[in-house]
Amino acid sequence: MTEFAAVDVIRAKRDGHTLSDAQIDWVVDAYTKGVVADEQMSALAMAILLRGMAPGEIARWTAAMIASGERLDLSAVSRPTVDKHSTGGVGDKITLPLTPLVAACGAAVPQLSGRGLGHTGGTLDKLESVAGWRARLSNDEFVRQLQDVGAVICAAGEGLAPADRKLYALRDVTGTVEAIPLIASSIMSKKIAEGTGALVLDVKVGTGAFMKDLDMARELARTMVELGGAHGVKTVALLTDMNTPLGLTIGNAIEVEESVEVLAGGGPADVVELTLALAREMLAAAGIDADPAEALRSGAAMDSWKAMIRAQDGDPDAPLPVARETEFLRATEDGVVASVDALGVGLAAWRLGAGRARKEDPVSAGAGVVLKVRPGDRVSAGDVLLELRTDEPGRIPAAQADAAGAIRIAQDAPEPGRLLLDRIA
Amino acid sequence: MTEFAAVDVIRAKRDGHTLSDAQIDWVVDAYTKGVVADEQMSALAMAILLRGMAPGEIARWTAAMIASGERLDLSAVSRPTVDKHSTGGVGDKITLPLTPLVAACGAAVPQLSGRGLGHTGGTLDKLESVAGWRARLSNDEFVRQLQDVGAVICAAGEGLAPADRKLYALRDVTGTVEAIPLIASSIMSKKIAEGTGALVLDVKVGTGAFMKDLDMARELARTMVELGGAHGVKTVALLTDMNTPLGLTIGNAIEVEESVEVLAGGGPADVVELTLALAREMLAAAGIDADPAEALRSGAAMDSWKAMIRAQDGDPDAPLPVARETEFLRATEDGVVASVDALGVGLAAWRLGAGRARKEDPVSAGAGVVLKVRPGDRVSAGDVLLELRTDEPGRIPAAQADAAGAIRIAQDAPEPGRLLLDRIA
Repeated sequence: MTEFAAVDVIRAKRDGHTLSDAQIDWVVDAYTKGVVADEQMSALAMAILLRGMAPGEIARWTAAMIASGERLDLSAVSRPTVDKHSTGGVGDKITLPLTPLVAACGAAVPQLSGRGLGHTGGTLDKLESVAGWRARLSNDEFVRQLQDVGAVICAAGEGLAPADRKLYALRDVTGTVEAIPLIASSIMSKKIAEGTGALVLDVKVGTGAFMKDLDMARELARTMVELGGAHGVKTVALLTDMNTPLGLTIGNAIEVEESVEVLAGGGPADVVELTLALAREMLAAAGIDADPAEALRSGAAMDSWKAMIRAQDGDPDAPLPVARETEFLRATEDGVVASVDALGVGLAAWRLGAGRARKEDPVSAGAGVVLKVRPGDRVSAGDVLLELRTDEPGRIPAAQADAAGAIRIAQDAPEPGRLLLDRIA
Repeated sequence: MTEFAAVDVIRAKRDGHTLSDAQIDWVVDAYTKGVVADEQMSALAMAILLRGMAPGEIARWTAAMIASGERLDLSAVSRPTVDKHSTGGVGDKITLPLTPLVAACGAAVPQLSGRGLGHTGGTLDKLESVAGWRARLSNDEFVRQLQDVGAVICAAGEGLAPADRKLYALRDVTGTVEAIPLIASSIMSKKIAEGTGALVLDVKVGTGAFMKDLDMARELARTMVELGGAHGVKTVALLTDMNTPLGLTIGNAIEVEESVEVLAGGGPADVVELTLALAREMLAAAGIDADPAEALRSGAAMDSWKAMIRAQDGDPDAPLPVARETEFLRATEDGVVASVDALGVGLAAWRLGAGRARKEDPVSAGAGVVLKVRPGDRVSAGDVLLELRTDEPGRIPAAQADAAGAIRIAQDAPEPGRLLLDRIA
């Protein structure tokens, strides 16, 4: 591999030049090995954020991140493989019902997930509220469960895209998260390394999402769809609303509970709508002709959920943890719920203990927010708008302030919002 | 002091906002103390480089860097104090004759200098080729010598602007040197902390300088002149050419030798011209009505030089070190010297051992380049163009290549270049 001086690579990007393939290969490899220091990579990341990257640079950067570790071989799995990734939202528990649902329709879903940081929760944190369930699988266990059950949600191994893991932690503390080339390559390097044959992306847009702006979200989606295609992974993206939380629960155990309701044929309409929309995209991408709504109705999806949980030593029938304290937030006037702001509710849940401020922090299984109203609902003064749940009462006042600011009551009913905003393939 | 999250400060600058006084005070202080990590400051430095800073931000940043350490009190010195700073060039030994010259005219020159890194040499490295001379003085010795001799060139103490020292080392490895707000605040924080009453800046422009472009150099000069004024230091800047090396010697001992020639009333015309121009500016800024040309002629400047060297335990009459090996670069054709490129000659001297690649490297006292021709000189094939001097013959081939590339022979005489390009006050 050609060697470079880190400072020359940084300067090239700083001055708006296109990095060469050799520069990208070297800097990603050297950073992974510690030859390029954190302070050099963070300066480069800031230069990438402000100067951008050409499509060819993003593709090479992604390839270099994949090459920094192993790429899983799922050829032993006879079912078509298809995965889903969400850019993260408040109340976004969709992976939980979706993975077993799509598996029940005949696909294998190799869902390698992460933990939450900040106000959007992590899928592994949610599932760990199920008694006995374990997030860590060996590669062998992972492939075997994919073949046998079709549904796996587990922690990504250390071997996948180690460059990305290191870079992601760095970006988090250096104000360089919001760079489309870095977001796209981070997501896609992990998903491509995981070995899936097809991928459906749920790109969230709105106050509770990482992308506040539809055009930016479209650019991110397009970038990722192209990256998938370039690596032989058929990729489709849905752009979906994240101004309002998904469903009525924001937390860990309470989101599992809501997911199980969906698998049982109930659950909030928006969660059901998005789960089915993503399931249809995933099945189409995997080349499977099946109706996911039927798999929900028949109980096949619920069976798949239970098998998935049991395969990872979890007890799907055990009661879920419940927070020790519940506080109610009530309406102070009569009117119609005009909006429920995802960011405010997400922050409230985070303050109650559902999320973590630092990656080493624990999360509370029972903590979170349960919404009792949705936009458009009529309320009278004194009605409960939401419940705040926590194990530590000292956390309530700050959460209450965020939650109160998140719900707006007006006199006129709001325009109904759309959940599915765009599709990019 | 108000506390901030580092990432919020980085994001604000990244997104093009003006940092508040409180944000600047906090981030500089927290970085000095290690609360803000290197990787965070480098991301911020890159954001500053690409987004810029408003004049008010630069002033506050400079004040925060001064406040990170002590500010010397020169009130015990009865002479008016005035200092000079050069942004660095090839063969730029002007501080050596200038400091005693201005002192001989009645000013006190508190010249705190640095060592060289890269192709431009450091004043302390040059003076250390004088037998016995020591760069480190206590604050008391410094003030006493200023009062008694009027001329001091010594190493800046650890106590002055420690934030700048830390940030400068970081910028060097992260591609964030070339940011005008950071250059200006770095230079001015040290000069203001050193306690001088007036300051003359020599801002170099050309291939051998840090600033290649006259407009950028003007902006830097203007920024520094304003910063000086805001802190009560009367500041004037000259913009001077650095496409051609200054004088005929580029190295350490050989530059001291040339400086002594100037003090003796001889020396290359360009070195004499710039020394006198800067001396006149310094004396005017200090409010002293004296003719520096007369101080050269009378021998007063030479006396001041000897007193300055002796005050720091140096022997001004001891022979200077000479490099073990000399190699000649000869003209391969007849013609006129069209140009002598400062960068190429500077790199050659650096490769011969006159400069260092890392700050812990030693430098060779005798190594360097001695020019035998100047632009406009007529040469015949076989004439010596320059001498390469080194203690290690293995260093010659690479230096030879740089030096050969630096001298261009043409058939027509070049337009005579100007040394003094602009003045900003």
